[in-house]
Amino acid sequence: MKKYLLTPGPTPVPERVLLASAQPIIHHRTREYGQALSDDIEGLKYVFQTKNDIFIFTASGTGAMEACVVNLLSPEDKVLVVNTGAFGRRWVNIIESFGIKPVVIEYPWGKAAKQHDVEKKLKEIPEIKAIFTQSTETSTGVVNDIESIGKIVAKTDAVFVVDAVSGLGAQELRTDEWDVDVVVSGSQKGLMLPPGLSFVSVSQKAWKLVENSKLPKYYWDFKAYKKSLQEGETPYTSAVSLVLGLQESLSMIKEEGLEKTLKRHAILASATRAGVKAMGLELFAEVPCNVVTAIKVPEGLDGSRLVRMMLEEHGVGIADGQREYKGKIFRIAHLGYMDTFDVIIALSALEIALTKLGYKVEAGKGVAAAEKEFLKS
Amino acid sequence: MKKYLLTPGPTPVPERVLLASAQPIIHHRTREYGQALSDDIEGLKYVFQTKNDIFIFTASGTGAMEACVVNLLSPEDKVLVVNTGAFGRRWVNIIESFGIKPVVIEYPWGKAAKQHDVEKKLKEIPEIKAIFTQSTETSTGVVNDIESIGKIVAKTDAVFVVDAVSGLGAQELRTDEWDVDVVVSGSQKGLMLPPGLSFVSVSQKAWKLVENSKLPKYYWDFKAYKKSLQEGETPYTSAVSLVLGLQESLSMIKEEGLEKTLKRHAILASATRAGVKAMGLELFAEVPCNVVTAIKVPEGLDGSRLVRMMLEEHGVGIADGQREYKGKIFRIAHLGYMDTFDVIIALSALEIALTKLGYKVEAGKGVAAAEKEFLKS
Repeated sequence: MKKYLLTPGPTPVPERVLLASAQPIIHHRTREYGQALSDDIEGLKYVFQTKNDIFIFTASGTGAMEACVVNLLSPEDKVLVVNTGAFGRRWVNIIESFGIKPVVIEYPWGKAAKQHDVEKKLKEIPEIKAIFTQSTETSTGVVNDIESIGKIVAKTDAVFVVDAVSGLGAQELRTDEWDVDVVVSGSQKGLMLPPGLSFVSVSQKAWKLVENSKLPKYYWDFKAYKKSLQEGETPYTSAVSLVLGLQESLSMIKEEGLEKTLKRHAILASATRAGVKAMGLELFAEVPCNVVTAIKVPEGLDGSRLVRMMLEEHGVGIADGQREYKGKIFRIAHLGYMDTFDVIIALSALEIALTKLGYKVEAGKGVAAAEKEFLKS
Repeated sequence: MKKYLLTPGPTPVPERVLLASAQPIIHHRTREYGQALSDDIEGLKYVFQTKNDIFIFTASGTGAMEACVVNLLSPEDKVLVVNTGAFGRRWVNIIESFGIKPVVIEYPWGKAAKQHDVEKKLKEIPEIKAIFTQSTETSTGVVNDIESIGKIVAKTDAVFVVDAVSGLGAQELRTDEWDVDVVVSGSQKGLMLPPGLSFVSVSQKAWKLVENSKLPKYYWDFKAYKKSLQEGETPYTSAVSLVLGLQESLSMIKEEGLEKTLKRHAILASATRAGVKAMGLELFAEVPCNVVTAIKVPEGLDGSRLVRMMLEEHGVGIADGQREYKGKIFRIAHLGYMDTFDVIIALSALEIALTKLGYKVEAGKGVAAAEKEFLKS
């Protein structure tokens, strides 16, 4: 059975990138590697829309999130987590693991963060050193208004840390223009690579926290990465094949042009939303992102069974809900190396699977709505 | 120019493994991935020669070393590092980064650890909770006698932690038989993969320390990996393409048979040693390992220039000395996907480069000595 990967990470890896990663391995202390690393950092700066330092870690996104915590914070620090789902919860868990009890603004799953709530909390607790949140919250399909929150944080001494693991290169995030001090991302989403690399950008304002941070660190130490980077190296052996693949996937983004890449994601998302709505389904996210569409499972259906059926009987991999939303929502990604007909595949497979499960949907109705949406753009 | 990678990591990746890693990516929460992960763990247990738990981290070897430190230790612990080179020093640095001042037995570079010294120190400081050392010390080409040290440690309550990042699958290390509680390894050496994965095995005795460890951790938390593994998963997205490649490289080791794999490395090492000695060169390691041969740069020559010349003029990548031994020793690996003629290439290129640098060596003399060594086996 032919397989289609439509999950919000890992996302499909373009053939060019697979081949670039399958080159004979090179040593990580050579000029050739130094060139690849430098190309990657330059390309990442373009996608991050930043002039800040960027570091590449051999680790998944969670590792880079931990890196932010241990490089920025000290044991007695007051910090704020703006939690809109499973990955917001991950910030809380990481911070707590390092002995810091964060202040948390917790939204019900599906809701987006409100600028006003953050503003209020920052006034209430002016000692807050850092604010942690998500750009796109993969577990709910919500996009938070990073620009508006950034404006509030920029007026304070606090540092703004945004997890854009799933959003980078798919959902607009203007790191410098929006005053985002630290942005985290990963390789296996909009950057179209296999998982294994993660990235952190660090502003001058954030460096001040780094200089004073007292949490213990070694593998994640930003200062070690900064020092090595000046010699075209990473402090420890990095995932060379992925670093070579990243050169290729960043070239693809440059060839398309970031603006067009972001526009493509916006169109794919809007077509997906139109398609599922035409099937009579309801969106889960209050403010849906361009990365993944979360859809409520219709009353009486088992969402986990739907997801399994799409994968096992039709080869179409979408994502179940996470935690308490397992079986209650499902998630279709339109992220990275995806285009028009990936959305059509998802909607067609969904129509077929829903029908098999006894949910009434007119064949082709979702697909038709998506096509109309594509024709508009 | 045709290129030959003869460095002690990354090592050449077999074409089969490159292709396995270049498969279309699969999702990490699927049965297919669970199967790959379970195959990998089973294969690793074979190579580690252990029945202990094994965890796979998306990180380079240094990350897994840090994982050992933060999972085993608590702030007030007494620990011992048996330091025989740059990677012994790395244990010290990591442990110190987490606020613990280790007791260190430090050997001059090139020397091997002595059972007697460890025994004495353990008697002197019976509170020592853990001993950290290297199997093969990549920076010097030394192999430590893990079996004899294991015997001493096994008589105490202390846990024995061995870095076999470069040695695993190349230098004999009988984890269970030799009472090694924790073994660390990495993907880019004897396991013939690109860098990006690292591995830790954990004995029952070590689990007792893990249960009581108070150092902060999240990404490295053994308990989270153990829990996820029961569901055929990793707690965070793992480097899927490398996990798929590892299935293939472990198959290759099983096909050859571990005993033969180890024997092959022993023969390659002994041929390399015979070859360089025949050229009038001197070995650096007191007890040379089967992974990499470290050779003293002859008086009056610039070792860094030699290494550069071999790479840039002949396409043969070997390794310079590290730290204070940069330019003073050079290192030829015979590790992983290497065989007879990789050694011949190294020796021939060395003869050519030495001659060009004005060192007197009879053309073919090193190669001849290696051939004789191969004929013996």
